[in-house]
Amino acid sequence: MKALVYHGPDSKSWEDVPDATIQDPTDVVVKVETTTICGTDLHILQGDVPAVTDGRILGHEAVGTITAVGDAVRGFSVGDRVLVPAVTKCGRCEYCQRGMPSHCQTVGGIGWIFGHLIDGTQAEYVRVPYADTSLYEVPEGVSDEQAIFLADSLPTGYEVGVLAGRVRPGNTVAVVGAGAVGLSAVLTTGLWGASKVIAIDSNKFRLEKALEFGATDAVEVGPGTVGDVTALTDGLGVDVAIEAVGYPETLLTAASLVRPGGTIANVGVHGTPVELPMQDMWISNVTLTMGLVDTVSIPTLLKMVASGRIPAEKMGTHSFTFDQMNEAYDVFANAAANQALKVVITPG
Amino acid sequence: MKALVYHGPDSKSWEDVPDATIQDPTDVVVKVETTTICGTDLHILQGDVPAVTDGRILGHEAVGTITAVGDAVRGFSVGDRVLVPAVTKCGRCEYCQRGMPSHCQTVGGIGWIFGHLIDGTQAEYVRVPYADTSLYEVPEGVSDEQAIFLADSLPTGYEVGVLAGRVRPGNTVAVVGAGAVGLSAVLTTGLWGASKVIAIDSNKFRLEKALEFGATDAVEVGPGTVGDVTALTDGLGVDVAIEAVGYPETLLTAASLVRPGGTIANVGVHGTPVELPMQDMWISNVTLTMGLVDTVSIPTLLKMVASGRIPAEKMGTHSFTFDQMNEAYDVFANAAANQALKVVITPG
Repeated sequence: MKALVYHGPDSKSWEDVPDATIQDPTDVVVKVETTTICGTDLHILQGDVPAVTDGRILGHEAVGTITAVGDAVRGFSVGDRVLVPAVTKCGRCEYCQRGMPSHCQTVGGIGWIFGHLIDGTQAEYVRVPYADTSLYEVPEGVSDEQAIFLADSLPTGYEVGVLAGRVRPGNTVAVVGAGAVGLSAVLTTGLWGASKVIAIDSNKFRLEKALEFGATDAVEVGPGTVGDVTALTDGLGVDVAIEAVGYPETLLTAASLVRPGGTIANVGVHGTPVELPMQDMWISNVTLTMGLVDTVSIPTLLKMVASGRIPAEKMGTHSFTFDQMNEAYDVFANAAANQALKVVITPG
Repeated sequence: MKALVYHGPDSKSWEDVPDATIQDPTDVVVKVETTTICGTDLHILQGDVPAVTDGRILGHEAVGTITAVGDAVRGFSVGDRVLVPAVTKCGRCEYCQRGMPSHCQTVGGIGWIFGHLIDGTQAEYVRVPYADTSLYEVPEGVSDEQAIFLADSLPTGYEVGVLAGRVRPGNTVAVVGAGAVGLSAVLTTGLWGASKVIAIDSNKFRLEKALEFGATDAVEVGPGTVGDVTALTDGLGVDVAIEAVGYPETLLTAASLVRPGGTIANVGVHGTPVELPMQDMWISNVTLTMGLVDTVSIPTLLKMVASGRIPAEKMGTHSFTFDQMNEAYDVFANAAANQALKVVITPG
């Protein structure tokens, strides 16, 4: 089969590899019919994730059809159309039982293993461990081009942003960074009854998208950002500030936008320390949350996509075939300039 | 009357001042029969709190008897024995209504105003604004030497540590810093069913006190601290790490002790920024909380003191009279060396 193989920083190729096969009785093999690229894949190619080594097949998001099933699998059969999520769940460790498979102890303490610790989904076929507790059947009425965004980006914005931020009816919410994950938070925060959703970005296209996806206000990043947001929120700032970029300055912006008693929900993947102004913050009764997605909201999100409440398909702005994998990466690596949100990659 | 007056950094004196009087119809005047000193008073004397200006009477904790009542006060009468808490509450702003008077908007956005923005409790008499919504009647069976610690230190350890940290039955809890506030967390965390309470300090006297106050384990600070704590907690760290000191290194210690999905409850008052290792922490699904005490747990704590479940009187290790105010500060400023937790100061 063909797959996108990592060969160290800045090096990858779409090449022939051994076929994905059943290794454990709890495995299935899925024929990948749609995949996409995540910002984390770009971090890997920058050499930021040393656990990913030469020879690893990249990718942790897929929709496809099961082609082989291990002896212990009971919930899925050959021919089932399934969503392969970013997180693998054993279903029996303490973290899985608590609904926090982001830290599944059985698969190594971090539930994200595809394209990281085992071969991933940017391939013609992928082996899926712990299939019964990890996979989701894609319901009728949900297309591949919708379901693919439920593998990681939509649940990340929803779980690590909206749910961790504890958005409640009447709340004002700021989303710092309107890329795919920030827009996923914008798409889902209104479901919790936010009174205002303020999108903040430096890119006009993304701010337009944010308004289209349900933001009530769009604020272009600049020296007046904090003043603009506090003017929109009774002078005190927002109840929930969602950080969806992953740089010190964006986390500090989120911190400066939140009112006393509010929550800063960090969603971004950080590569450096962040100097937090604790001398000002200690008295503020704010809460800072952070984390990897659990993907346990996928059944909920699938229902909301099926019922038309979440137009997930709008996240896909560019389409490619497997043999255009490099072009897909080039477009996504410069997403803002290319007016790209997420790319959709199919066998073609 | 006599009072302890601040005269700029490192300068204070017990001197004659005008009598405390009713200024607003919602005021009462309280004759102070017991007061104490808080770590925050030491910060003020170091010049760390510029809002406190020359001429301000210090202190924000008192037990005493009402001697005058404003026309609008309905819940209290002359002669009532009351606890004056650190936080003043208007009772009607959005923050007070949500149970978060730490940010009472009516009194200026920060509910701590005694010995800060208005004259405080280290005095023979104190004017108490918004008396109906701020004061607590001291029940029969609770002594002054117990109640005084419910003005600030006990509710701070309980609310900002145990409650914000969301301690739940079975949890393992580390308390970094076993001073008065850390020990208040130790005293109250067992009430929520913690399976282990691990006290961490560099001072042997404080560690002994921690074991006496309910800690299950005591760990002396050193290069092996993190290893010692993880060995006590299945190798993953604690569910809740309570920081009760207020330095970068102690907050970073707390962060390094918490397991994935856990909570770091910062209680300490910080004077400098803290460089948080977000490059390691973003994926950990931890929550960091911080804040000023609301003092809304005081009725609960009074009941637990009255019923003998919280031996609050054990917090008082040294007693002084008003004319020994300077000696009391000297002992408390070197609390660890003097084997002091909290001082009890009375008219004598």
